[in-house]
Amino acid sequence: MGGAVVRKKRYLKLLPLDEARDRFLGACAELGVLREREEEVNVWEALGRIAAREVQARIPSPPAPCAAMDGFAVRSVDTFGAKPSAPQFLVEGRFIPVDTGNPVPPPFDAVVPVEEAGEVAGGIEVRRAVAPGQHVRAAGEDFPEGATVVPAGGTFTPEAIAACIATGNTRVWVKRKPRLLFIPTGSELLTPGAPFQAGKVHETNSIMFRAHVERWGGEVEVHPIVPDEPGLLERSLRDALEADYDLICICAGSSKGRGDHTPELVSRMGELLFHGVAMAPGKPTLFGIVGGRPVLGLPGYPVSLWVSMRQFLKPMFEKYYEAPLERGEKVVGALARRVHSHLGTREFVRVRLEETGEGTCVVPLPGGSSRLSTLLFADGILEVPEEVEFIPRAAQVEVERVPRRW
Amino acid sequence: MGGAVVRKKRYLKLLPLDEARDRFLGACAELGVLREREEEVNVWEALGRIAAREVQARIPSPPAPCAAMDGFAVRSVDTFGAKPSAPQFLVEGRFIPVDTGNPVPPPFDAVVPVEEAGEVAGGIEVRRAVAPGQHVRAAGEDFPEGATVVPAGGTFTPEAIAACIATGNTRVWVKRKPRLLFIPTGSELLTPGAPFQAGKVHETNSIMFRAHVERWGGEVEVHPIVPDEPGLLERSLRDALEADYDLICICAGSSKGRGDHTPELVSRMGELLFHGVAMAPGKPTLFGIVGGRPVLGLPGYPVSLWVSMRQFLKPMFEKYYEAPLERGEKVVGALARRVHSHLGTREFVRVRLEETGEGTCVVPLPGGSSRLSTLLFADGILEVPEEVEFIPRAAQVEVERVPRRW
Repeated sequence: MGGAVVRKKRYLKLLPLDEARDRFLGACAELGVLREREEEVNVWEALGRIAAREVQARIPSPPAPCAAMDGFAVRSVDTFGAKPSAPQFLVEGRFIPVDTGNPVPPPFDAVVPVEEAGEVAGGIEVRRAVAPGQHVRAAGEDFPEGATVVPAGGTFTPEAIAACIATGNTRVWVKRKPRLLFIPTGSELLTPGAPFQAGKVHETNSIMFRAHVERWGGEVEVHPIVPDEPGLLERSLRDALEADYDLICICAGSSKGRGDHTPELVSRMGELLFHGVAMAPGKPTLFGIVGGRPVLGLPGYPVSLWVSMRQFLKPMFEKYYEAPLERGEKVVGALARRVHSHLGTREFVRVRLEETGEGTCVVPLPGGSSRLSTLLFADGILEVPEEVEFIPRAAQVEVERVPRRW
Repeated sequence: MGGAVVRKKRYLKLLPLDEARDRFLGACAELGVLREREEEVNVWEALGRIAAREVQARIPSPPAPCAAMDGFAVRSVDTFGAKPSAPQFLVEGRFIPVDTGNPVPPPFDAVVPVEEAGEVAGGIEVRRAVAPGQHVRAAGEDFPEGATVVPAGGTFTPEAIAACIATGNTRVWVKRKPRLLFIPTGSELLTPGAPFQAGKVHETNSIMFRAHVERWGGEVEVHPIVPDEPGLLERSLRDALEADYDLICICAGSSKGRGDHTPELVSRMGELLFHGVAMAPGKPTLFGIVGGRPVLGLPGYPVSLWVSMRQFLKPMFEKYYEAPLERGEKVVGALARRVHSHLGTREFVRVRLEETGEGTCVVPLPGGSSRLSTLLFADGILEVPEEVEFIPRAAQVEVERVPRRW
């Protein structure tokens, strides 16, 4: 904490959010991050993955005619005319006892349900005639050979996996998960679980980052904490460029502090595409390309990080998988008090939703992006567009709910 | 496949679904399956778990006053009167350069943002006065010591975990996950991945069971496939009773086939509470108590299994965790054709939803519960109450959407 130092860092220029997001997604696409890649996996390990290729039935399901009920497989002609008052007697050899799912081999072509037949000496009595195919599941009834089981772009739900296995598919092609490196920076950071030290705080952003990115379909590696010394971050970044990450994320260090070396480093080693986004929280977001690899600088305040991840990374995954990710329910309510916003900035206000006799009341939570509690206790997010300076009290506003469960 | 055998099995009595569910949940509660149990875990391993006890801030967050902006920590009194036209000069020692998050130790009580100060020989010039506390985050501003971070019953979201760590909580009490054993039965079954054999089918129900139960907050162990021989299932059940499962689920074998030994076994070893539920699909569901342990018999057809799990196990987890699980969105549309239903039976019709110029059209999918494809390609489920025999074409009906992603 010595004397003064030269303090001239500034944001390059605050980019509007939509433009920044377009620039980020465009560069990712150009660099091949959003180019679809695929890998083959065991289908029972594909839960939640997205099909890169259509899965077709290799064998029909069911593979052969089988009983749809518990009873007796018979030749339907042998039962013609049978009725409760005049049952048909079938001698042994003219029927097979079957349970649901058992094969019904030729010449048998129907099943008499157990309720419609009785055992008698030397055979059975059939009390109701059955038609050809009755109570028999035809081969391929569920999936004929060659039928689409999972279309390209479809999700391997548990039911889809069961259907794949039933149709002879054990290996399937899924879209590869993009691999993200998360580099936490800051001399004040302690590893989660390390003993508390005065003047230090525990690094928790990697936990939030990993959880959200994994849910969106990415793979995350967390780099050890990098203290605020330019040489160290540069070395970490150079090492990362040697590995095969699709996106390198550097957390904190993209603001204007003395320890904020990321913009300078990205500029020096590559090209800085933007530094500073006109949104709140989340302003200190930067993006650049280093060694042909996209590098995203994320803010260090947890609420800012959360907003930035949702504004940049979530759409990246949606574009990669070509499928929308879950959104919170939209709720309309009356604003409890006037909300001010900076002209030209997209603001994300954390709000509580309170049910009153007159409908939903939207209550903005006080406190800035430094307060994780505003996010933790929020029911939803009110998005204030750039061109809006304030929203008057009692205005009807739309809020996106933040799920309380995970 | 020898001669005839005695075939006298019948369902005990088809119970209405609501009554069967009440009986199941009531017995689970009595047997202690729904009694809340808790365990202590590392908070960074608690993602998605439910808090068994309230988590309070052990240390305030932030732990000490710290800079809310990049700039210079000062004594606010030293800046009084400063303005751009008449800056205040502060000699070295009267300020500390700080970055966001750095401690602001006494006697300093405010931060002059880097934009409002300039470096000059021997010190800094402050161009705008700051008030006491300005641009400083007070200790405990986010969470004061003792504040609730996660209430009992709350979910450990990524944000909640970050807040726990920031407030000095490394170990937390979570509700223990109920442990379920899944016993697949059937001589015709092959392990998933085993080579195809004529007359056999791959066992896939355990995959569906595990995926859904884990998502609902349970832990699943899958027993090896038990062929349809009564001695074998009995031995498996006796072994299971020695272990500490909260619920034992036996899949298939609860219908009326020759291989369906479950009802008889449960009756002989304990008490059969119901056998057969007035719902379709899912009729062959049974429930009993053996050795003080709840035993649920689930149907073998995948669609029936899916319905039965959602009607019995999902509410069990909701009751245990005292929190509703995710439901599909409700959609209202016009029925494309008349739907028939058995009086006294709750039917779950798989439907497609088609958007037309005149709104949503609800198209029932043909085919019975033996067709997994009806579930796989369904957009939603239309529930037909017991007292309804048919719903006319064009009637407005409510459908619960089946999520297409996982």
